[in-house]
Amino acid sequence: MPDTIDYAGRPFDRVPFESVLRRRFFFTESFESYRQASGFKGDNRGLFDYGPPGCALQANIVALWRQHFVLEEEMLELDCTALTPEDVFKTSGHVDKFADWMCKDPVKGEYLRADHLVENVLEGRLKGDKTARGIAIKQEEKSADAKKAKTAVKDVKAVKLDDNTVREYEEILAKIDNYDGEALGELIKRFDIRNPDGNNEVQPPIPFNLMFKSSIGPSAAAPVYLRPETAQGQFLNFRRLLEYNNNSMPFASASIGKSYRNEISPRSGLLRVREFLMAEIEHFVDPLSGKKHDRFDEVKHIELALLDRDTQLAGQTGTVQVPIGSAVERKIVDNETLGYFLARVQLFLVKIGIDIKKLRFRQHLANEMAHYACDCWDAELLTSYGWIECVGCADRSAYDLSVHAKRTGEKLIVQEQLPSPLKVERWEGTLEKKKLGPRFRKDAKFVEMAVSELDQESLEKQAAILKQEGRITLTSPVPLADGSATLDIDSDILTIEKVTRIESVREYVPNVIEPSFGIGRILYSLLEQVYWHRPQDSARGVLSLPLPVAPTKVLIVPLSSNTAFLPIVKKISQRLRAIGVSSRADASSASIGKRYARNDELGTPLGITIDFDTVKNGSITLRERDGTKQIRASEDEVIDAVKALVDGTEALEEVFSRLPEFTGQETE
Amino acid sequence: MPDTIDYAGRPFDRVPFESVLRRRFFFTESFESYRQASGFKGDNRGLFDYGPPGCALQANIVALWRQHFVLEEEMLELDCTALTPEDVFKTSGHVDKFADWMCKDPVKGEYLRADHLVENVLEGRLKGDKTARGIAIKQEEKSADAKKAKTAVKDVKAVKLDDNTVREYEEILAKIDNYDGEALGELIKRFDIRNPDGNNEVQPPIPFNLMFKSSIGPSAAAPVYLRPETAQGQFLNFRRLLEYNNNSMPFASASIGKSYRNEISPRSGLLRVREFLMAEIEHFVDPLSGKKHDRFDEVKHIELALLDRDTQLAGQTGTVQVPIGSAVERKIVDNETLGYFLARVQLFLVKIGIDIKKLRFRQHLANEMAHYACDCWDAELLTSYGWIECVGCADRSAYDLSVHAKRTGEKLIVQEQLPSPLKVERWEGTLEKKKLGPRFRKDAKFVEMAVSELDQESLEKQAAILKQEGRITLTSPVPLADGSATLDIDSDILTIEKVTRIESVREYVPNVIEPSFGIGRILYSLLEQVYWHRPQDSARGVLSLPLPVAPTKVLIVPLSSNTAFLPIVKKISQRLRAIGVSSRADASSASIGKRYARNDELGTPLGITIDFDTVKNGSITLRERDGTKQIRASEDEVIDAVKALVDGTEALEEVFSRLPEFTGQETE
Repeated sequence: MPDTIDYAGRPFDRVPFESVLRRRFFFTESFESYRQASGFKGDNRGLFDYGPPGCALQANIVALWRQHFVLEEEMLELDCTALTPEDVFKTSGHVDKFADWMCKDPVKGEYLRADHLVENVLEGRLKGDKTARGIAIKQEEKSADAKKAKTAVKDVKAVKLDDNTVREYEEILAKIDNYDGEALGELIKRFDIRNPDGNNEVQPPIPFNLMFKSSIGPSAAAPVYLRPETAQGQFLNFRRLLEYNNNSMPFASASIGKSYRNEISPRSGLLRVREFLMAEIEHFVDPLSGKKHDRFDEVKHIELALLDRDTQLAGQTGTVQVPIGSAVERKIVDNETLGYFLARVQLFLVKIGIDIKKLRFRQHLANEMAHYACDCWDAELLTSYGWIECVGCADRSAYDLSVHAKRTGEKLIVQEQLPSPLKVERWEGTLEKKKLGPRFRKDAKFVEMAVSELDQESLEKQAAILKQEGRITLTSPVPLADGSATLDIDSDILTIEKVTRIESVREYVPNVIEPSFGIGRILYSLLEQVYWHRPQDSARGVLSLPLPVAPTKVLIVPLSSNTAFLPIVKKISQRLRAIGVSSRADASSASIGKRYARNDELGTPLGITIDFDTVKNGSITLRERDGTKQIRASEDEVIDAVKALVDGTEALEEVFSRLPEFTGQETE
Repeated sequence: MPDTIDYAGRPFDRVPFESVLRRRFFFTESFESYRQASGFKGDNRGLFDYGPPGCALQANIVALWRQHFVLEEEMLELDCTALTPEDVFKTSGHVDKFADWMCKDPVKGEYLRADHLVENVLEGRLKGDKTARGIAIKQEEKSADAKKAKTAVKDVKAVKLDDNTVREYEEILAKIDNYDGEALGELIKRFDIRNPDGNNEVQPPIPFNLMFKSSIGPSAAAPVYLRPETAQGQFLNFRRLLEYNNNSMPFASASIGKSYRNEISPRSGLLRVREFLMAEIEHFVDPLSGKKHDRFDEVKHIELALLDRDTQLAGQTGTVQVPIGSAVERKIVDNETLGYFLARVQLFLVKIGIDIKKLRFRQHLANEMAHYACDCWDAELLTSYGWIECVGCADRSAYDLSVHAKRTGEKLIVQEQLPSPLKVERWEGTLEKKKLGPRFRKDAKFVEMAVSELDQESLEKQAAILKQEGRITLTSPVPLADGSATLDIDSDILTIEKVTRIESVREYVPNVIEPSFGIGRILYSLLEQVYWHRPQDSARGVLSLPLPVAPTKVLIVPLSSNTAFLPIVKKISQRLRAIGVSSRADASSASIGKRYARNDELGTPLGITIDFDTVKNGSITLRERDGTKQIRASEDEVIDAVKALVDGTEALEEVFSRLPEFTGQETE
């Protein structure tokens, strides 16, 4: 892509870009005709359908992902259900905590996402201040306008702010993701933030759970949710995965599938949607290993652009360029495994065509992190909407495996043979089974569970109580038949003692490092980054998609509708299919130039022209999309060259310097 | 697979088979640990997770499907959302009609699917009759026992029935899919059919809608359903698809994705599930073309086993073997396009490893068809559960496009340039626009819609009424602001006349032929059909999956844990990866025989052994799974042979007769 019309050099214009995506059916709003129909009362926002080129691009990105991660690292792939019983998400914390804050505008009756509301209003005021001071507004800031269709401040009033206010606003915006509902409510009050659409005051933020709820089975008594992430299915299969992996650690599972989030007010096209394709990896690691990674050496030299937590809390947004080896050494990134994945994520993104200058890794702020995470770095891609989170790399510690094990009683642990037996002292509680049954009847199993859940510290504490009072009171893991929640256990049934054991096996709950990819966001950001137009004609858009992800690899165009060309088109298309290269023939009556222009918009990297010389001597031409350079050679030579390009065994420059150039003009 | 232990020759035993699938983690019940946990009140039935081999097998079947249908026939692939606004399924008829009949057992409080209840009880009685008469029960009938876990008759009472009753029961069972709720209710009464589990009487059948319902957005005012099929998204994108296809007909769209059905009482493992992967094709065709297909000649010689409607209504289940060309000629199968797809479906199923002797095509009975279908043939696969519907090929006529166009006002039609202009007479209604607005205000658009929706017959009828009464009354397409549903239109506003037009464009609504694949059912049936065990040892199961679908193509086994083997294992694994062949190394301490046995259960077709001769002279052995024959050759020769086998350029027999046999014993 020529540098001069790069996004950075020349303002990216979203209007013609979106027109190309729509015209070429990369994707479209789902149920658009229903939204436009009279009497439709539903909501189709945040739902998108992929058309043929979008679908092929998505499939190619997924195939490369599978190759780059699953096959290269021998991950164990799973396909789990999206429908999930409520109990699972109660345990994982999603029923209580997987929520965004929203404010109701009581006059309009509409709901606004609280953080977006604050962000937009303050950004609008800062822009008004700049206008008043006569400062030019940068492209990136301008484009943020369109970020939130519903709440965006459309008409910026040129009002000068005092310098302290400007500084305060900027600091708030730098850490906007760090505020909870209460803090957002205070900001809204303090700065008199109102719904920009109508200027009404809004009510204080309330949490809104983002999971779609339904019920399963005929009786409607069993609530289910659609998963908001693929991860839980992987955790719940941990025991089977470990067994499948011959009980050897560390290992990773992976899953590619749809997830669902009931976003409060979806906008920004593919960037905030309610149904989306995710690709997630759960890498299980021994917490005592220091989270070392045995292939870290292969990546430690790779430089990443990092924006850490401290920098953001200081109100700054500048990145530093650091080799990942040194970032881990300096503890900017916590451990090798996390660092290894950050580097591998970068390699993947660059492979599919992301511009490395438009990629950064940003560390989450404390309040921004999901409830299960103890550290998290996002790979963010620069688009006309600003920096967009596309891959999250979270350290979920032992959180998920522990809570599910506690709830279900299934041991989600690793047993490791110790090199030599260890003498360990520890507290143990023993129940008198003979008395347990008669006294507790069907609550007996809850007594067993409650005792087995006591950790060392609790056991020591309860031992003292038991000795003193002759009885302890424990909380039952589930409500009892009589409605009570506690169990009174006497010392004639329970003994708690410190014992010495010789152990030859160590048991531990693995920690989880989770790289999680939003395929739709990556796909959209990639399309923006590879879009440009021919210098001579702003209506001639080009998508410079790299060969491995391009929806179609080769366009076949006969010069005209002359019937002599048809069998040749058919033969070439069959030959390409036989070597596994997707092609599309365009025998329409449009000029060759128009047909190429159409396929530049589809991102088709190569074009084969069949003309009267082909009929005479069997030679065909090969055109490359970005530079529109053409060569002419025999059919065999060109097919071999295409294969070499698709297999990656030869570079474009090599092929186009090796074979004789063809200078026949493209005709419009 | 030796014939002697073929399913047909030797009874298929589901117990060891299921044990293999579980042990090798092909798939597993989702949320199993939750179902087993105390206090769990949810419902996980009909939900399954695929483990690594199941996931790879599924991905390979899908990849072959895409190659066989989408690429080979240049279909336009789409990826649409599962979340669908209620309005769409109201229009499509699913809200009203996509239901099964169920009976409540008021004592147990459980719901039973009505047709399954009747089927099971009558089958049980027939079996009791056979026992009483001393007739041996066939394997197929025996295995039907396990078909419905909940309602199955466990203990067959040996009660002799009179000959007329036997005939009557058999006839009912042959057309069990043809009964609606009322008819099922009558059967239940007439034959005193009760819940086999407890012998309670059941209440009359009531319909239960099979779609999962949720709501979208923060206000809960917008109901959505999870799609029960991928088809609607394809219909709603018809206009865009046609445009993408340069307005040329016929063409097909295709979609691979998850669908959801809230089955009343899921059972039979993967065969009746609530979340499943579908692959669907919608082939759009001109209804006046006679539904001809221009590649029909390529398939017309292919013989299919057909079971048509008349045969079933006569209470018979025998198939006839007919070339599809002759079946279409004799109108057994309605048209070429439907016939073409039946043949292509058979080719696909055989390609992935289905036994052609265990495949039949059965025509739907009238009441059995989905509400949108006018004809339907199922590809059914024989398993231990009986004949299972795996692919449905329905002729949906113009149903879906018509109803959506009517509801939304979007024209879902094809405009075809006529070779020469045609003079046509037709009725047309014309509205006096100037009076329309003032009189009807915001209902004016509904008047326009109501008039535009009148077909030729209605227009003629209304013209007479308008002439006689000076006014007509039409139903509004949506309820009006004042709550009424009808529109009174006077003759000063509306004229209806017969006019003559010269038309150069013909407009028509395409018909749709839909082959719809249940990937999970195909996958399960395939696994059953390729399962057998070594004659000498019933515990040594083998899955004879063909190379293209096998989860892993090559197992690499070093003779022992000797460190000299490790770099060779690594090198061979890298070489295989480079040529795109998935392999798995097993360097565990188990014997070579054990390791091969493990991978026979995983269906791994090829095995490479590395031993001390490899270290000395670089030669390795190659083993084929089904016959356990081994050859020995240089690393290069073996890798080349593997590539030829995977690419399909050489057959197994060729490779194993061409290279020198190795007779070193497999050691247990």
